[in-house]
Amino acid sequence: MLVVLKPGTSETAAADAITRLRMAGLAVHRTEYDRRVRIAAVGDTTVVDWQEVAGWAVVESVAKLARPFKLASRAFHPHDTVISVGRVAIGGPQLAIMAGPCSVEGEEQVFTIAKAVAEAGATVLRGGAYKPRTSPYAFQGLGEEGLKLLRRAADAHGLAVVSEVMEPQLVTLLARYSDILQIGARNMQNYALLREVGHTEKPVLLKRGLSSTIEEWLLSAEHVMAQGNRQVILCERGIRTFETYTRNTLDLNAVPVVKELSHLPVIVDPSHGTGIRDKVAPMARAAIAAGADGLMIEVHHDPDRALSDGAQSLYPGQFRELVTQIRTIAEVLGRQV
Amino acid sequence: MLVVLKPGTSETAAADAITRLRMAGLAVHRTEYDRRVRIAAVGDTTVVDWQEVAGWAVVESVAKLARPFKLASRAFHPHDTVISVGRVAIGGPQLAIMAGPCSVEGEEQVFTIAKAVAEAGATVLRGGAYKPRTSPYAFQGLGEEGLKLLRRAADAHGLAVVSEVMEPQLVTLLARYSDILQIGARNMQNYALLREVGHTEKPVLLKRGLSSTIEEWLLSAEHVMAQGNRQVILCERGIRTFETYTRNTLDLNAVPVVKELSHLPVIVDPSHGTGIRDKVAPMARAAIAAGADGLMIEVHHDPDRALSDGAQSLYPGQFRELVTQIRTIAEVLGRQV
Amino acid sequence: MLVVLKPGTSETAAADAITRLRMAGLAVHRTEYDRRVRIAAVGDTTVVDWQEVAGWAVVESVAKLARPFKLASRAFHPHDTVISVGRVAIGGPQLAIMAGPCSVEGEEQVFTIAKAVAEAGATVLRGGAYKPRTSPYAFQGLGEEGLKLLRRAADAHGLAVVSEVMEPQLVTLLARYSDILQIGARNMQNYALLREVGHTEKPVLLKRGLSSTIEEWLLSAEHVMAQGNRQVILCERGIRTFETYTRNTLDLNAVPVVKELSHLPVIVDPSHGTGIRDKVAPMARAAIAAGADGLMIEVHHDPDRALSDGAQSLYPGQFRELVTQIRTIAEVLGRQV
Amino acid sequence: MLVVLKPGTSETAAADAITRLRMAGLAVHRTEYDRRVRIAAVGDTTVVDWQEVAGWAVVESVAKLARPFKLASRAFHPHDTVISVGRVAIGGPQLAIMAGPCSVEGEEQVFTIAKAVAEAGATVLRGGAYKPRTSPYAFQGLGEEGLKLLRRAADAHGLAVVSEVMEPQLVTLLARYSDILQIGARNMQNYALLREVGHTEKPVLLKRGLSSTIEEWLLSAEHVMAQGNRQVILCERGIRTFETYTRNTLDLNAVPVVKELSHLPVIVDPSHGTGIRDKVAPMARAAIAAGADGLMIEVHHDPDRALSDGAQSLYPGQFRELVTQIRTIAEVLGRQV
Repeated sequence: MLVVLKPGTSETAAADAITRLRMAGLAVHRTEYDRRVRIAAVGDTTVVDWQEVAGWAVVESVAKLARPFKLASRAFHPHDTVISVGRVAIGGPQLAIMAGPCSVEGEEQVFTIAKAVAEAGATVLRGGAYKPRTSPYAFQGLGEEGLKLLRRAADAHGLAVVSEVMEPQLVTLLARYSDILQIGARNMQNYALLREVGHTEKPVLLKRGLSSTIEEWLLSAEHVMAQGNRQVILCERGIRTFETYTRNTLDLNAVPVVKELSHLPVIVDPSHGTGIRDKVAPMARAAIAAGADGLMIEVHHDPDRALSDGAQSLYPGQFRELVTQIRTIAEVLGRQV
Repeated sequence: MLVVLKPGTSETAAADAITRLRMAGLAVHRTEYDRRVRIAAVGDTTVVDWQEVAGWAVVESVAKLARPFKLASRAFHPHDTVISVGRVAIGGPQLAIMAGPCSVEGEEQVFTIAKAVAEAGATVLRGGAYKPRTSPYAFQGLGEEGLKLLRRAADAHGLAVVSEVMEPQLVTLLARYSDILQIGARNMQNYALLREVGHTEKPVLLKRGLSSTIEEWLLSAEHVMAQGNRQVILCERGIRTFETYTRNTLDLNAVPVVKELSHLPVIVDPSHGTGIRDKVAPMARAAIAAGADGLMIEVHHDPDRALSDGAQSLYPGQFRELVTQIRTIAEVLGRQV
Repeated sequence: MLVVLKPGTSETAAADAITRLRMAGLAVHRTEYDRRVRIAAVGDTTVVDWQEVAGWAVVESVAKLARPFKLASRAFHPHDTVISVGRVAIGGPQLAIMAGPCSVEGEEQVFTIAKAVAEAGATVLRGGAYKPRTSPYAFQGLGEEGLKLLRRAADAHGLAVVSEVMEPQLVTLLARYSDILQIGARNMQNYALLREVGHTEKPVLLKRGLSSTIEEWLLSAEHVMAQGNRQVILCERGIRTFETYTRNTLDLNAVPVVKELSHLPVIVDPSHGTGIRDKVAPMARAAIAAGADGLMIEVHHDPDRALSDGAQSLYPGQFRELVTQIRTIAEVLGRQV
Repeated sequence: MLVVLKPGTSETAAADAITRLRMAGLAVHRTEYDRRVRIAAVGDTTVVDWQEVAGWAVVESVAKLARPFKLASRAFHPHDTVISVGRVAIGGPQLAIMAGPCSVEGEEQVFTIAKAVAEAGATVLRGGAYKPRTSPYAFQGLGEEGLKLLRRAADAHGLAVVSEVMEPQLVTLLARYSDILQIGARNMQNYALLREVGHTEKPVLLKRGLSSTIEEWLLSAEHVMAQGNRQVILCERGIRTFETYTRNTLDLNAVPVVKELSHLPVIVDPSHGTGIRDKVAPMARAAIAAGADGLMIEVHHDPDRALSDGAQSLYPGQFRELVTQIRTIAEVLGRQV
């Protein structure tokens, strides 16, 4: 249920209303919009007489939250959520450009790429230290060593860090080195992992599952938010369809749909979304034109020797040119790089 | 097979080479690029000794056309194909903006909308006079009466006309009123119909089937081109996936993929691709940013009373604003509206 | 709307009720069940005051037909429809086994196969004389010559014939040689073709489109039935999904779903549904166990040399063994081969 | 690589060959078939000179394992794997019938259902104590209390237990009460969890992910097996497609395909595969007819009050009747219930 308090309600009165709902056994979340405290009450809402609540002196309105996600819903939080990481405020007027190698492979590699993407306009360095691999026999990443390199390379160039965490036990370790905790597509419904990152204070980048509906995706964001962490960045990265020419089908429809349903920022990963180098720039431009809050792009200075996903990585020069094009398109939507 | 003749080969010598290949029972198609005659020979190519052909004095090279489509392939025709219709050259630097109602409903409706879209910058008027309907009990269109209205409204505002033809017997009738013959998604593999429009001299707008791969789509273009009509415009309009929030999943990946594989122009229909009015403009912008040669958009001045697809039609004002945004994005790619 | 007349209503009174509904501009279809005349009235049903109709002396009940298909719906026609073709009553207790080559290739081929499948227990001979081909350069079938061979081979072995018709102009020709007119998956929404076969008196075998929902499939059956031809046999032949190991994903769920929604018989084609020879028998057994009314199976005595689909054709010996297994499974469901 | 030793090779000589491959840094797995030791060597196989290995006195042949899964592949282990759990040998001639409620809800519920399914012929009791839920606000299961009830109810009726484990930390707890550890569809690519169950000695029931290809599914089995636990039972439970009438599309093609590619047993869950009670029995029969090694079926004595998935649970009487039908179909394939 969504309970909106009257404008001008005192803090004490608001706290009192919240306590009363809590005592009914509900989980209660609070936000403010348009000078009104808004309270989302979730759990077994049948135990409460909502007509009575509607009659409380401080209550302006009581309404059902129609969609199954509550905290992620625009009804609960009409403002766009803006998440500050390093120099960038994700979801604000400035676009978030995240770039870097698929996997961290070594010091020279990650420093070379960090320098190149920083100079081109990126503000966040991406790179995998723990890799989810379909085959148990494939390269699984450098682990903590990779995280240290990533952190040092980012710091040297004034970048924030985003890196994937694959299991609950590693969340604390990842949070030590990475500014944003990435949940990969395969783990979008790994609820133990969502719960664990929900207990941290780090922003979470939640990739859409390969065959997850937009509603399931927002419900996975809800799993994180229900633990207290409201800093979730959504990332569209392609869905599985019958078309096999591209690795996945990048679903850019999802961008305006998420913007309507939720207040959370949404970025797009055209590298995994297409899987083909020369399709990355067109789809990156398209993502921004569709209203995305940013991009996550794989860049490698020597993609032929990359240990993973080389075929979809941009060369630094291509990335620089792309950022220039993005700049003009962003202006059409009143945004900047 | 693709046989490239040496630069400077005389017309007589080229004609002689073509005749010899025809006599082997092959269908032979000719184009020119980079001062060289290029010959695509299709049919039972096993009957010819291609090493011998490679040895002909006028022949520069002989190569296999790797993909199953030949005439639609960029290997056969490296230049972009540009198709002139009325004031617009589709596939050239100017984007083709096609707009109008889903169905022609009456004189006032079609004239009102034609005026609005022409003023906003459209150059082609769309409108259905014969409608493919999933249910036999739904409105099937005004037929020839609708075509006449469409033609008059277009002429009054300097627009070209595109309208769907659903069966072989109606091709002649459609060609009388419409400048472009549209093949709908459901008929993408209706080979009798493709053959029939392949015998006309009108450009054909070929929509991608709801679950057709890009290769199947280009093979359907090949069905048209193999009859002699090489003026095919491809139109992406959304594919069927598991996601149900939007009517279809607009596959913008297809735009750069088609541009790589084929020389044919490709436009995008975000109205059917999303099925939701306020998602049309973001996806239209995205389509142009991805490199599409144009757009096909449903516009209606009174969508609540439209006989079909009202919920996805833009208001004239929204369409005007969209064209303005498109103008700036087009410049990033060196194009104009 | 579904109007049920009281038991014992005279023919004259029933005809009078039907006439009155027709005069309101509705298309009216009649069936009988449980000693009651049932009338489906379709078209613009808003013009009629249905409360008044409910008050007519002969009317027992008036109800909305909830699903968009009417004549194909079990609500309109609660009995299973049984369609007699040659020796077999399709939809009755005896399973319909249709078998034969993908394409008719020549006299010896079709006679050899016809003999083999007849001896093994088939009652209908399948074979394509006109082939829908994705590529315009592939073998398109023998045409009328192929139909003649098919007819003669079937007659020689007491079989009925089923063969595909691909365009409206060929319906009359096909109907001359074939007992059942097959509509292929690509043409499931070719409404001009559906209308044309709807005007014949031949049973129509309607294959499900590669990405058609069950509802769309039944609506295509409705297109045929709305023209007067109520003898439609549905055929599940696999849908397009992300899985690429098999050619298609045979959707056997569709069998019990169709049985619930419709009175029409439904058979299964595991040859196209899997595309792999040694997967055909398991899926054929599964289809019968799921409640299908029959099978359509490709059989070839020399599949390595088949001009189409050899890799999915059973050898005659495999087909014979399969029919034996089917016999026992059929008994579990109270049916016979 | 697959290294096959000559028949009659002594244990010492075989152990010596294995040691030599291990010293090259490879993970080495051994099985026997047809009186020959077969060794799968995985890892960076480029460091070994395989021609030299082929020349070793004890080696009969060296071949590349073409598919990315090794231990799960039939090439490595040509025999069917049979996994003994309680009274049933899964993968052997007797079909494994697993049945029970979706969630354990209380003592009376689970004892009532256990009794009913045991009497009808089930040998394994299923029931969820920890439930993966798309919404964080839905019933999450009774936890350890539920496991205790499940164990006691199973023991009272001579049944084995299968229950889902959702996170690595709970594997030890689950293994205390459950005979088979179930990995749910959402966790099919949760590699930390696969690794953890791979370290136990309990059989693992691995459900296919909602949009996983068969190859990805076998690679997930490989993740378990690579840790040493070779007792993996595969379970097809429906894939996500465009069809929305059924909850999922049960992909029975997967049964014969898995049987060809792998030696692991494969069972089918038609309850989740269809999501509709009266579609469960037809699809269960179809699964057995297609060659499945068993079934997993939801049964509830009072489904209208079930806390989850009531609409797809069979009544005990329906389940009993289904087992009777299965018995006859099994005989066609030389198997028993």
